[in-house]
Amino acid sequence: MTPRTEPDRLTLEQKASLLSGRDFWSTTAIEEHDIPSLVLTDGPHGIRKQAGASDHLGINDSEPATCFPLAVAVGSSWDPEVAARLGAAVGREAIAEGVAVVLGPGVNIKRSPLCGRNFEYYSEDPLLSGVLGAAHVRALQAEGPGASVKHFAVNNQETERMRISAEVDERTLREIYLAAFERIVCQARPATVMSSYNKINGVSASENHWLLTEVLRQEWGYEGAVVSDWGAVGDRVAALAAGLDLVMPGAGHTDGQLVDAVHDGRLSEDRVDTAVRRVLALREHHHPVRSYDVAEHHALARELASDCAVLLKNDDAVLPLDAASELAVIGEFAVRPRFQGAGSSHLNPTRIDVPLDAIRELARAAGREVGYAAGFAIDEDAATDPAALRAEAVALASAAQTAIVFAGLGDREESEGFDREVIELPAAQRDLIRAVAEVAPRTVVVLSNGGVVSLEGWHDEVDAILEGWLLGQAAGSALADVLFGVVGPSGRLAETIPLRLEDNPAYLNFPGEAGRVSYGEGVMVGYRYYETVGRAVRYPFGHGLGYTTFATDALSLESTGPDTAVASVTVTNTGDRAGKHVVQVYVATEAGAVRRPTRELRAFTKIALEPGETRTVELPLDRRSFAFYDTETACWRIAPGEYRVQVCRDASEVLRESVLTLDGDPVDSRLSRDSAVGDWFAHPVVGPMLRSALAGDLPEEQGQSVLGSADVLAMISSMPMRQFLVFTGAAVSDEALAEMIRRSEATA
Amino acid sequence: MTPRTEPDRLTLEQKASLLSGRDFWSTTAIEEHDIPSLVLTDGPHGIRKQAGASDHLGINDSEPATCFPLAVAVGSSWDPEVAARLGAAVGREAIAEGVAVVLGPGVNIKRSPLCGRNFEYYSEDPLLSGVLGAAHVRALQAEGPGASVKHFAVNNQETERMRISAEVDERTLREIYLAAFERIVCQARPATVMSSYNKINGVSASENHWLLTEVLRQEWGYEGAVVSDWGAVGDRVAALAAGLDLVMPGAGHTDGQLVDAVHDGRLSEDRVDTAVRRVLALREHHHPVRSYDVAEHHALARELASDCAVLLKNDDAVLPLDAASELAVIGEFAVRPRFQGAGSSHLNPTRIDVPLDAIRELARAAGREVGYAAGFAIDEDAATDPAALRAEAVALASAAQTAIVFAGLGDREESEGFDREVIELPAAQRDLIRAVAEVAPRTVVVLSNGGVVSLEGWHDEVDAILEGWLLGQAAGSALADVLFGVVGPSGRLAETIPLRLEDNPAYLNFPGEAGRVSYGEGVMVGYRYYETVGRAVRYPFGHGLGYTTFATDALSLESTGPDTAVASVTVTNTGDRAGKHVVQVYVATEAGAVRRPTRELRAFTKIALEPGETRTVELPLDRRSFAFYDTETACWRIAPGEYRVQVCRDASEVLRESVLTLDGDPVDSRLSRDSAVGDWFAHPVVGPMLRSALAGDLPEEQGQSVLGSADVLAMISSMPMRQFLVFTGAAVSDEALAEMIRRSEATA
Repeated sequence: MTPRTEPDRLTLEQKASLLSGRDFWSTTAIEEHDIPSLVLTDGPHGIRKQAGASDHLGINDSEPATCFPLAVAVGSSWDPEVAARLGAAVGREAIAEGVAVVLGPGVNIKRSPLCGRNFEYYSEDPLLSGVLGAAHVRALQAEGPGASVKHFAVNNQETERMRISAEVDERTLREIYLAAFERIVCQARPATVMSSYNKINGVSASENHWLLTEVLRQEWGYEGAVVSDWGAVGDRVAALAAGLDLVMPGAGHTDGQLVDAVHDGRLSEDRVDTAVRRVLALREHHHPVRSYDVAEHHALARELASDCAVLLKNDDAVLPLDAASELAVIGEFAVRPRFQGAGSSHLNPTRIDVPLDAIRELARAAGREVGYAAGFAIDEDAATDPAALRAEAVALASAAQTAIVFAGLGDREESEGFDREVIELPAAQRDLIRAVAEVAPRTVVVLSNGGVVSLEGWHDEVDAILEGWLLGQAAGSALADVLFGVVGPSGRLAETIPLRLEDNPAYLNFPGEAGRVSYGEGVMVGYRYYETVGRAVRYPFGHGLGYTTFATDALSLESTGPDTAVASVTVTNTGDRAGKHVVQVYVATEAGAVRRPTRELRAFTKIALEPGETRTVELPLDRRSFAFYDTETACWRIAPGEYRVQVCRDASEVLRESVLTLDGDPVDSRLSRDSAVGDWFAHPVVGPMLRSALAGDLPEEQGQSVLGSADVLAMISSMPMRQFLVFTGAAVSDEALAEMIRRSEATA
Repeated sequence: MTPRTEPDRLTLEQKASLLSGRDFWSTTAIEEHDIPSLVLTDGPHGIRKQAGASDHLGINDSEPATCFPLAVAVGSSWDPEVAARLGAAVGREAIAEGVAVVLGPGVNIKRSPLCGRNFEYYSEDPLLSGVLGAAHVRALQAEGPGASVKHFAVNNQETERMRISAEVDERTLREIYLAAFERIVCQARPATVMSSYNKINGVSASENHWLLTEVLRQEWGYEGAVVSDWGAVGDRVAALAAGLDLVMPGAGHTDGQLVDAVHDGRLSEDRVDTAVRRVLALREHHHPVRSYDVAEHHALARELASDCAVLLKNDDAVLPLDAASELAVIGEFAVRPRFQGAGSSHLNPTRIDVPLDAIRELARAAGREVGYAAGFAIDEDAATDPAALRAEAVALASAAQTAIVFAGLGDREESEGFDREVIELPAAQRDLIRAVAEVAPRTVVVLSNGGVVSLEGWHDEVDAILEGWLLGQAAGSALADVLFGVVGPSGRLAETIPLRLEDNPAYLNFPGEAGRVSYGEGVMVGYRYYETVGRAVRYPFGHGLGYTTFATDALSLESTGPDTAVASVTVTNTGDRAGKHVVQVYVATEAGAVRRPTRELRAFTKIALEPGETRTVELPLDRRSFAFYDTETACWRIAPGEYRVQVCRDASEVLRESVLTLDGDPVDSRLSRDSAVGDWFAHPVVGPMLRSALAGDLPEEQGQSVLGSADVLAMISSMPMRQFLVFTGAAVSDEALAEMIRRSEATA
């Protein structure tokens, strides 16, 4: 560890120089003090170390690295082991490249399917995002390098991302948009947290004292460094004062602003020293270069990818494919796989597995040749003739037993830097799928896309749909493994697939206007909304099929404290293949004075079972599983009442349910002049005092009408005492009121 | 008029005494200065002058007065003539009772169908609310008394109404929640405006300087008095300072607070004098008592009511009824009509027309007797036997040709003071309707309710539905008139009837929690939401059938200025009865940088046509018809682009459309350090200056990547110049930047 006194040996100018980068990708060195420059690079599903000209936007080439499944895919694995093995491998590659900090994981919530960067995020659910992100960070950092959990916070769109103000109420912030960060910070202690470009309720995240100091450090106890997203800081003094430590990229020409601010008293040198210590502490993540096994990492990428694909539909068990049957592969994505997204995370893979090659290899082993037709052009241009491409594909499909269509989105359709405007596949692909399905005896659609795509218009025409998301460089072989049943599919949706974009709860308020985006749906994000309003979806959050079946029995609950419990669930593999199953535990309640979503994911685990095998798993439910964030007392609160613990197939379907009754947290019964009249009258001690004080005091006619009627009391019960006194003209003396308030405090 | 110097003759204590009431219903008198006490009473659909003990809650009896159709019904008339004739009659009755100010009309927007006081409001649309409210105020005040437009503002629920903070963005405030008030204040100059109980964005409406002074007086030029809702003020000094003039009810015991505040300089005596002048000016609305013709007013109530009922469904022209056929009347509402709401507006009618009596009278003229069965109990209690009541009704219905079921909501189901939790009719009524529809050859349902009720579960089983809302004391005869075709129905829905409560855009955020209610749906209220997201509804805003048919032809548009036009529409009565038709003109556009609803009502007129008659009506479209409220420049703005002017059957169905292209308002092209990089580069003069300043300046690798690629520019185009300079380290001097900013200002 860096000695804590180290800043004392530096001049103020030297300290200031350490608080911004030397250039795009490294921190400032001070040779006379043996302070080295550290390298930070984009991640998180692989290392993008810039080879030539520096940019933060994935334009230029980078050193070869393994491209693992993207966060959108890891999210669908519902498996912290997948996140951890990926994180560890990325950590090893970081060391091989001399990288100290790998930027990622991104744990922003998928508020709208339109967000152009959703492929870098895990889920619409904060628990799933937080558990996966924590596993990634822990494993990566165990290898040595530091992580940078990002983008902190409420960076849920690309449109105007550097100027937009996300307007969000605090309960929604705490329960939805900060929760994954909180879990990762508290449980995995990431070396850095990256502040986002956007504003939150009017204040830039990178200059936000509430966010970076009060919440992150004072409440969550964070001790690492806060680094800015590249170019997020406009005012270095304000950012540092708010709690941001390291400005990236290099901004040495503004170091003097810090020096001046200390000299004229606007900034304390203590704050500078603290930031310097945190930046210097990053040195512990710098390790001697050590190589890794490229082939082994590729094999790992393939194994992890096969755990991420989600089998959405599989009528008549058309999958797994019979390698000995007549197959036709259609769609340019089969030969030009899309396996990563565009933008800062775009890396240079060590190799690329091509789906068609992988399929042909498996088919050849069964003595079959597989035909291929492009069917459409990923990048349509003037030379593209969609009808001709389609006709060729249709001819091929009609001669096959099963047509496998590789469809998806290209880099034109989705990227960091802009949001989508539609969720449909390009029209040429939709036309192709329908045309193929019309002639092929069986049609399987394999999707490659970072953001959700609509399945409408062709879903009912095809037999099976395998959602591959962006699976990394081994996508081709991993998809073939799943299609042929070498590995059974076990992914579950980490985000809802809606019937229509317009059904999305953020539809009205995305991407905002006039510099602000209102999070008007509050906590009702994703499945929380669809379930609460009973809106039909194509496939719910948590949905995913396999090649075997599972039975869920015998949910039991055991209290482990006043507001904690353990759910025990027994699962049996009732099919004839080995397979993995995700146990999903949700909590549903109407307790408390806030509007609760119909149900919320509170625990999950993924287990592998052999055919016929039965296992009982225990899932702990902590206090947070039942709490809501109470903005009035600024704390997490348990409301007294019933909590239904539900083991679900997905967010829509409850398999087993058991009820837990909680006493809840004590309620503050202190009264004030702003308390409601109803609370005053209902108070066991003060209520009678007030009634007798009023009885002699009110003009008779008012005494009758105000106090005599239950209906009237119902109408005024929410009136603050302050107004009630003006309203009735009741001459309750200040002394008498103060005494009653004291009594309420004494009995609280 | 009151001489403007009058406050000079009063002591400060006397002035303070004038700024709160003497008691519940009257202002303070000062005999030595011949200042009389003025009476204010609840309205707006009739006079509720308290006879005995005073209360604001409709508990105690009041002097008899004509109960005209309620606002919910007047809204459905879509006819400013109806509002005006009603307002004038109420004005005459006010004079008969010695009343100077009649509280009302209520023009709050129906944000949720659950609001318990929706019966006192006109519509979910601000134009319809504003036009009707202005007609009411003008006509009432032409008779002498003053009006009090209420509840200003954003009082859209009863739950926690005295403490809740409505959290609304400013565009939504301006376009939806303030617009009706603005129209009425500017066009009808109401004597008073009543401030509401709730807070708006954290500040009490009654202590809200922005609302009561900046918007109401400085922007809208209001010169009347602001009076508090009864009991809305908790801090008299703050309220007066914010712009509130008269606190009601009597709060003389707090007058000293004003005096003290002036003495210690917290409040200027000028402000007190201004308020006193405004309160004294109300004297002009006090007139010598003059009686009115009770029978004539009742006849008027009947005539107006028949223009308000909405015929929702009329399969096979089952309506109008044949008086010579076998009819059965079912439902306790037929003998105990519900025609007004519960709460402060509840009045003591001069007479009550009972539906069953009115139907029997018309049937007897055709030689028929009409059977009756209660079918259900409005106020169910332990003694009620729903099955027996239903069986009796079914027996009666099965012997008739047509069963007429009077269903609806009782005072238990809806009232001022609380919000509903469901929109269904009571279960006993739904069961009854289904049972009757099963046996009766034809079933007609007549509804009496203040808030929207769901028609699901029985809509498809019945032949006709007549929505009567709360039609006032002549409801019984007016409904009979419409049922038998004495008058043709001509009402149109002023609010959407949804399929499910959950489909309502405010569903997630109503009635709020923890002291605040987020208006997360923004401007997407009512039909604006349903049309924009393509959500199916049972009946859209604007829907209503008649006994004749109309054809709409030949929409033409004529520009009358840079941003105004006149729409000419030709309508023909193509049926064989005289009838009234509402021409509804909406504007649809995607112009501008804000999200527009699919269409918005911008003009309407109701016309009466004889069979075969054709008429061309002209509907002016003013600047506001095309503008949105631009929060960045704090003004109403016309975006350049196409505006589709649509004549619609209702909010869902366009009959005729014509396009208007507007140049729009000039755009401010001045640049600042906070302007987006994209705007800087795009500026015709500054862009080239910036490029050449940067060309020599950036490190070569960055110069290439930042300036060389269109993709990169797309990614950073929303970055503020301030951040861009840190990001790139470009040493553009402060002088050079300032010069560029000057050039942008010079060319703006």
